[in-house]
Amino acid sequence: MSHYLDHAATTPMRRCAVEALATHAGLLNPGGQYASGREARRVLEESREQIAELLGADPIEVIFTASGTEGDNIAIQGLYAASPLRRVVSTPIEHSAVRETISHLPGVESELLPLDEGGHVSELSLLDEPAALATSMWANNETGAIQPVAEIAARAAAAGTPVHIDAVQVVGKLPVDFHALGATTLAASAHKFGGPRGVGVLLARRSPAPSAVLFGGGQERGIRPGTSNVAGAAATAAALAEASAEMEAEEARLRALRERLREGILARVSDVEVHTAEPALPTHLHLSFPGAVGDSLIMLLDAAGVEASTGSACSQGVNRASHVLEAMGVSLESARGALRLTLGRTTTQADIDAVLGVLPRVVERARAAGV
Amino acid sequence: MSHYLDHAATTPMRRCAVEALATHAGLLNPGGQYASGREARRVLEESREQIAELLGADPIEVIFTASGTEGDNIAIQGLYAASPLRRVVSTPIEHSAVRETISHLPGVESELLPLDEGGHVSELSLLDEPAALATSMWANNETGAIQPVAEIAARAAAAGTPVHIDAVQVVGKLPVDFHALGATTLAASAHKFGGPRGVGVLLARRSPAPSAVLFGGGQERGIRPGTSNVAGAAATAAALAEASAEMEAEEARLRALRERLREGILARVSDVEVHTAEPALPTHLHLSFPGAVGDSLIMLLDAAGVEASTGSACSQGVNRASHVLEAMGVSLESARGALRLTLGRTTTQADIDAVLGVLPRVVERARAAGV
Repeated sequence: MSHYLDHAATTPMRRCAVEALATHAGLLNPGGQYASGREARRVLEESREQIAELLGADPIEVIFTASGTEGDNIAIQGLYAASPLRRVVSTPIEHSAVRETISHLPGVESELLPLDEGGHVSELSLLDEPAALATSMWANNETGAIQPVAEIAARAAAAGTPVHIDAVQVVGKLPVDFHALGATTLAASAHKFGGPRGVGVLLARRSPAPSAVLFGGGQERGIRPGTSNVAGAAATAAALAEASAEMEAEEARLRALRERLREGILARVSDVEVHTAEPALPTHLHLSFPGAVGDSLIMLLDAAGVEASTGSACSQGVNRASHVLEAMGVSLESARGALRLTLGRTTTQADIDAVLGVLPRVVERARAAGV
Repeated sequence: MSHYLDHAATTPMRRCAVEALATHAGLLNPGGQYASGREARRVLEESREQIAELLGADPIEVIFTASGTEGDNIAIQGLYAASPLRRVVSTPIEHSAVRETISHLPGVESELLPLDEGGHVSELSLLDEPAALATSMWANNETGAIQPVAEIAARAAAAGTPVHIDAVQVVGKLPVDFHALGATTLAASAHKFGGPRGVGVLLARRSPAPSAVLFGGGQERGIRPGTSNVAGAAATAAALAEASAEMEAEEARLRALRERLREGILARVSDVEVHTAEPALPTHLHLSFPGAVGDSLIMLLDAAGVEASTGSACSQGVNRASHVLEAMGVSLESARGALRLTLGRTTTQADIDAVLGVLPRVVERARAAGV
């Protein structure tokens, strides 16, 4: 039985989500103008209403997608296409779903907000000049650093700039109130909070709305076509409801476990750099062990029954120094020795103690192997 | 218990697919470089290999998407973006996922292959001049008419034109051999053959490959980013395997039921136009009852326990005359009285006889209500 510490990549589906999938597997096409279609539509719309309520949005603002990546793409490509401007303001530490999407916008003039050493956006004046859109992640997927998204949204709004928030790491972990936040769009991913893979949620205000990026049958306000995955929507709503109900208790529990992990590592291993700085998600601990290579750490931890990542786990088999650490001014040698440990719902003290038990020897061996 | 005759919109998930979803619900991130990641990757790649084998493709040509709509969008937008040409050749009867996508291609010069009265592409010479791409559905979603896709692919290939085939209605119903077909890309949707909603398969040759339309973590050859839905992929492979094994027997069984339905309707109702002409899928029967309105037919059938559609069921609550019937030269009055009855795996003779029992009175009442 291994100890899973890669919850920021994906987290096990909640039992309530598995049950919702099974309960609703028999539902048919919510577009059908007949009894079984109405029943599917009822479940779809109830799921939408439940998610809207939990995230402080109106039901019509809830767009079901297939992933956080798709939500980011639709929001960014769609808001950009809807604007006459070509300027886009973001941060240097965005997920590839945002970074790559921005870099492929035709004619884009991309600008990046400055970052402090802790990995937080530190200065917002770039937002005072109008842009096609501004976009920021709510919390970074590698370090867990929480960004000043309300300030970003307010400052951009004052310049008339639409704002997209990539909240993939936050939804289900911290309270989200879309209307209070003041963003134009917000992307979430169901499997990050115990919902099914293959479902995302994009919150999108009625105006300005993103132009369509994918075309088809007009579902989801024309913003995201394709036959609705009703069971997936219901499972997502169930998972988010449970995550929201447990949120306060889980935040305290996970923060205590993460602190135990951080303090334990600092006490047991020499020459450690901690990249996770407050304010940060309670679930993340990003470190470097200079002199070791991250991939060796991962491999040795795996052999010792601990599952972790060097950083972004979204990209299969890709090994390069993290753009997040680079933007934070971390040296290349340190960045190469990065390790991300992320906690979640199923994490126990036994998992933490298992990591603390094996990590000193793992780091020692990885450092001996050299870089 | 109602009689479901809208299988072309969506069909109930197969038990084997539901079981595969449940079996694999616990799998985590196939991008993880550790034991549970390798296990998820193994299931994902075995699913990919199984689907490749069943569809006559190489595993690397199998791209998991979220829907047939997404596959059509990626192929069409992506092949167009990869070409210096602006000419696109398609047919007048494409699904909205193709038609709408083509109409939004920047600078597109769109041309349509001519159609005969039976709804089949009748003349291919437009394909002799090079184009950015040619695209055709394999079988039409309203009439079931099977198109000469091998001839279309060969003729386009001779001019150096990439070819996309929308095979959403065909995969799982007729044998598909991607390499023998000679197409560049081919889109399928899992829920049309008893797989889960929210999963599609795009077959894509290595060259010419579509440019990326969505950007992110580089999954699926960079063609379709986002954390993989491994359980969905496994359920899709299971459903396709079962559909393929049953295909020959089901084709004969459904064709006989469909003929019983067609002959029964023609014997019991006067002034009927049949729009489904051979070669056609064994599952489709598209008709018109001039003097009635399709929506009234659907509503009255629903009240009588029969679930059917006027045509394309993908678009929720949209009521307009079918572009497919218009392209076939059907009068507007006839087109307004259209009814699509589509059969599937769960259809029995009792369903057919139930339709035959209620349809004469339904048509009579709909005609009395006027247009």
